[in-house]
Amino acid sequence: MAANVHDVIMLFGDSITQAGWAEDGFAARLAQVYARKLDVLNRGLSGYNTEWAIPVLEQMLATQQAQQHLPKVRLLVIWFGANDAVIKPFSQHVPLPKFIENMKYMVQLLHSPDSSHYSPTTKIILITPPPVNTYQRSADLASRNPPLEMDRLFETTKQYAEGVRDAAVASNVAVADVWTAMWNGAGENEQALSRYLSDGLHLTHEGYTASCSGPESVVRADRDKIAYETLIETIAAEYPELHYGNLRSVFPAWNEVDWANPGPSVQKRET
Amino acid sequence: MAANVHDVIMLFGDSITQAGWAEDGFAARLAQVYARKLDVLNRGLSGYNTEWAIPVLEQMLATQQAQQHLPKVRLLVIWFGANDAVIKPFSQHVPLPKFIENMKYMVQLLHSPDSSHYSPTTKIILITPPPVNTYQRSADLASRNPPLEMDRLFETTKQYAEGVRDAAVASNVAVADVWTAMWNGAGENEQALSRYLSDGLHLTHEGYTASCSGPESVVRADRDKIAYETLIETIAAEYPELHYGNLRSVFPAWNEVDWANPGPSVQKRET
Repeated sequence: MAANVHDVIMLFGDSITQAGWAEDGFAARLAQVYARKLDVLNRGLSGYNTEWAIPVLEQMLATQQAQQHLPKVRLLVIWFGANDAVIKPFSQHVPLPKFIENMKYMVQLLHSPDSSHYSPTTKIILITPPPVNTYQRSADLASRNPPLEMDRLFETTKQYAEGVRDAAVASNVAVADVWTAMWNGAGENEQALSRYLSDGLHLTHEGYTASCSGPESVVRADRDKIAYETLIETIAAEYPELHYGNLRSVFPAWNEVDWANPGPSVQKRET
Repeated sequence: MAANVHDVIMLFGDSITQAGWAEDGFAARLAQVYARKLDVLNRGLSGYNTEWAIPVLEQMLATQQAQQHLPKVRLLVIWFGANDAVIKPFSQHVPLPKFIENMKYMVQLLHSPDSSHYSPTTKIILITPPPVNTYQRSADLASRNPPLEMDRLFETTKQYAEGVRDAAVASNVAVADVWTAMWNGAGENEQALSRYLSDGLHLTHEGYTASCSGPESVVRADRDKIAYETLIETIAAEYPELHYGNLRSVFPAWNEVDWANPGPSVQKRET
């Protein structure tokens, strides 16, 4: 079994989080910079909204009784809204007030002393959903067989992004505002969001070759800069003690090892 | 704290493993295909040889008493030899017989009933170190300031790769023969190994933009095909029950959720 040697960063969200392992995705980049310091656990659930995610989060977080044996979650990143913002009558739709309530509930699950999952030392960052490019999205849905009706609106997703900011303020946790970073990066031009979005909704990775074919590589570089850099900048500003630059490796560098008697010199350290 | 929801694949090795998180590295690609099924824990230790790694592995694996609380290691991938094969008098050198003994010891740490870390259900794969391109390596060392002496020989690393194969046979575990895959892929021409090795030794990633500039993207594609595909093919052939295609998501797909009453329908399942 895996001994408890590294604390963790848990990424909890929908398909945009699940796809974060794809090459150069934000999860893979986090794992790279936090190597030997914190494990990155990707808990993305494609297609989930906050209603369905809450009973899963309750299983993903240890109860207080079990916490002593398990890795500490030093940072929980929560990234929802892309599916909650689906319009009625689609099944993923969650009304905005309920969405905001759910975001606050997830924070309270760790930060309320009354919670069976109380973990006051876990820092939390809420990420705003990316803006929707309805030009790309409607074309993508229309191209399906059979064609699908449009399921998202630019203004609606914008409101859910605002809801995430409101929930963060009300819950006294940090927010990484990817919605605004992308909107500004696109010059506040919806069609220009195509430099960040492959299908108007997702930041998905279409595979290595495609990603390295001319313009697409620019898309990748920009998109990843937005998602990853926005999160890292938020960590640096709000929780600098958790920035990878301020953590040390759990096990020492090879040139710190006592070559004559390695054992005592390679004991686990606090990161 | 992170509840115990996913079993794990643990990658234990040197810098070649640690760098596996880099974009399109083998660790990132494993994490991508095993998303929602098994967590991939990268336990790469840059610069380490097996002598220094053993006392770390003993800390990374849970004792039998603690195992009940911790994630099961379904697969342990051990990839050493690149540093053990350094020639005398360099500090990383481990004599070949001792290296083979160390590889066997790491397997016995999990598979011997006498071990305090006994975990008979953990499958193990040993990976052979990549061949050294001494043309690239010597040029790289000579370019340092001050210039460094040559530290590795093609024939020596070849012998350590054979040692890994011998240790795997003697220990009755699988081997992923990256050395042979690269050697064959290079047409048994040492200089042609440059398509797999950035500096004659490492499979490191030089960053996104560089990796997508013409020839380098070919290097990346080939190199990653070799390391990742060789491992996945070994899993499919030797431990098919652990191939990602034969595992299901721990939590159900979004369209399996009972929208009227989500909780009971999103309970953790065996993968």
